[in-house]
Amino acid sequence: MGSEVAYRFAPIAYIQSPFKEKFGIPRQPGLIPAARGRVVFVPPYDDPAALDGLEQCSHLWLQFVFHQNLQAGWQARVRPPRLGGNRRLGVFATRSSFRPNSIGLSVVRLDEISADPPGLSLAVSGLDLLDGTPVLDIKPYVPYADALSDASNGLAPAPPQRVLRVEFASDVVEWLEQTDPEGQLQGLIREILAYDPRPAYKQGELQGQYGMRLLGYDIRWRMLGLLLRRCQAGRVIRTGRIGRHRDLGSRLRLQTKDRTAEEITQRQVGQQGQQNQMPQEKEYQPSHLLNS
Amino acid sequence: MGSEVAYRFAPIAYIQSPFKEKFGIPRQPGLIPAARGRVVFVPPYDDPAALDGLEQCSHLWLQFVFHQNLQAGWQARVRPPRLGGNRRLGVFATRSSFRPNSIGLSVVRLDEISADPPGLSLAVSGLDLLDGTPVLDIKPYVPYADALSDASNGLAPAPPQRVLRVEFASDVVEWLEQTDPEGQLQGLIREILAYDPRPAYKQGELQGQYGMRLLGYDIRWRMLGLLLRRCQAGRVIRTGRIGRHRDLGSRLRLQTKDRTAEEITQRQVGQQGQQNQMPQEKEYQPSHLLNS
Repeated sequence: MGSEVAYRFAPIAYIQSPFKEKFGIPRQPGLIPAARGRVVFVPPYDDPAALDGLEQCSHLWLQFVFHQNLQAGWQARVRPPRLGGNRRLGVFATRSSFRPNSIGLSVVRLDEISADPPGLSLAVSGLDLLDGTPVLDIKPYVPYADALSDASNGLAPAPPQRVLRVEFASDVVEWLEQTDPEGQLQGLIREILAYDPRPAYKQGELQGQYGMRLLGYDIRWRMLGLLLRRCQAGRVIRTGRIGRHRDLGSRLRLQTKDRTAEEITQRQVGQQGQQNQMPQEKEYQPSHLLNS
Repeated sequence: MGSEVAYRFAPIAYIQSPFKEKFGIPRQPGLIPAARGRVVFVPPYDDPAALDGLEQCSHLWLQFVFHQNLQAGWQARVRPPRLGGNRRLGVFATRSSFRPNSIGLSVVRLDEISADPPGLSLAVSGLDLLDGTPVLDIKPYVPYADALSDASNGLAPAPPQRVLRVEFASDVVEWLEQTDPEGQLQGLIREILAYDPRPAYKQGELQGQYGMRLLGYDIRWRMLGLLLRRCQAGRVIRTGRIGRHRDLGSRLRLQTKDRTAEEITQRQVGQQGQQNQMPQEKEYQPSHLLNS
């Protein structure tokens, strides 16, 4: 394939993230400050000397590998989810992961440098990376060089907006108060669902049931109802609700539908198995849409 | 060396730049708008479809390889030139090229997309990359995600300033008017020297003679005098002057000293040969200081 020159890079660190799968990951870094994680260094890069001075930097660039896409290859044109999935753009005009070299770029806030277990690590927030992402490099954000005041991008002129109102049923709230007293899980769910993680061409739809793995939990929700389930327990804990509203206030009807945990789990396993065998589906497919 | 996982990346493009060696390259991208160059795609990435929509983006991120540093290895602490070269910082707190993975990050303005020879390419400006730099990826700059308004960096709080007043002798001006009617070479020289390309710990010095290859020319200058010479011709064309001023106006004495081209060329060749054999000197050494 063309150039015979190639370079070999080994990860210096790996990401610990609340996002255990692609679906639900924020569309941009910084969008969800509640998305907190860690950059955990691996030997021989776990040397505190290499971080000397980093505490003076509020933000970092992470250069990472889209490690789940390495087998998928690249395409000259992709369908960015923000454009409704029906307009194709050149891959270099997008931040799509289906690139010739699967290297990503993400800016995060640096919250803390820690030498506690699991070893030398950086606590970061505003994260948009998958758990286990290999990190190739970390660079300081330099405001006067990186924050361009005269830049424009007609393809992405404005940040994503919160379009969904997220409601938890009262019993879910009770469960969260006991299980998640600091509100990390609840905050994450609220923010992720508010931005509607579905592909843009699906966002007008009111049907469909979705699932995403977040922290230690397997979150299930439907456009007209929410199922919240503990991942490890394998049973439905509580059901909640999610409402979609348009035009700031006109609220659509809600519908709640319970299922047994077994039914949901089997469907999810089947769906994931299919997905793994179909790399041509790409990330923009609603891989976690469970037909209801 | 730690992690056994590694990733292999091949260049998608190479940089055509006025900067033929490291000395003289701007300290940050965007600092010198006159620094224009090209990103020239190589097969199979020279597909116009992969750029579809890119014309709507004013700026691009280039992820590239510090290809001249691959043999030098990395160091946990480096001496950034901006801090005077006498303070050591963790490599991840800097943009130094002596990183575990020699991947760089640079933002440039996109001026034009062209399919003319030498093939599919992007005309860019504000470039801070060496001629021949391999490019691994190109991403659009997304202002709302990349231009952080709340970021701070105590290590690099303010952009570099123009500290030198650059003067050309009248005969140099005449030569430039004939050779460089559009002023590209003159503009580049003026801007590069105004920022004082020497390492910070050398910037108080008034002695020393320097050389840099720029466009098709071999530029020679001394703190108290400037020698301008055509690279390919191998002879001195004209001599000019450069003055250093402090405190906005107090001008230091100027001194001009001519040399034969042969003498300069031999010294330069000797110096470059030494440099190539001494990777431990790192980029922050004044590798192009010619003792006068």
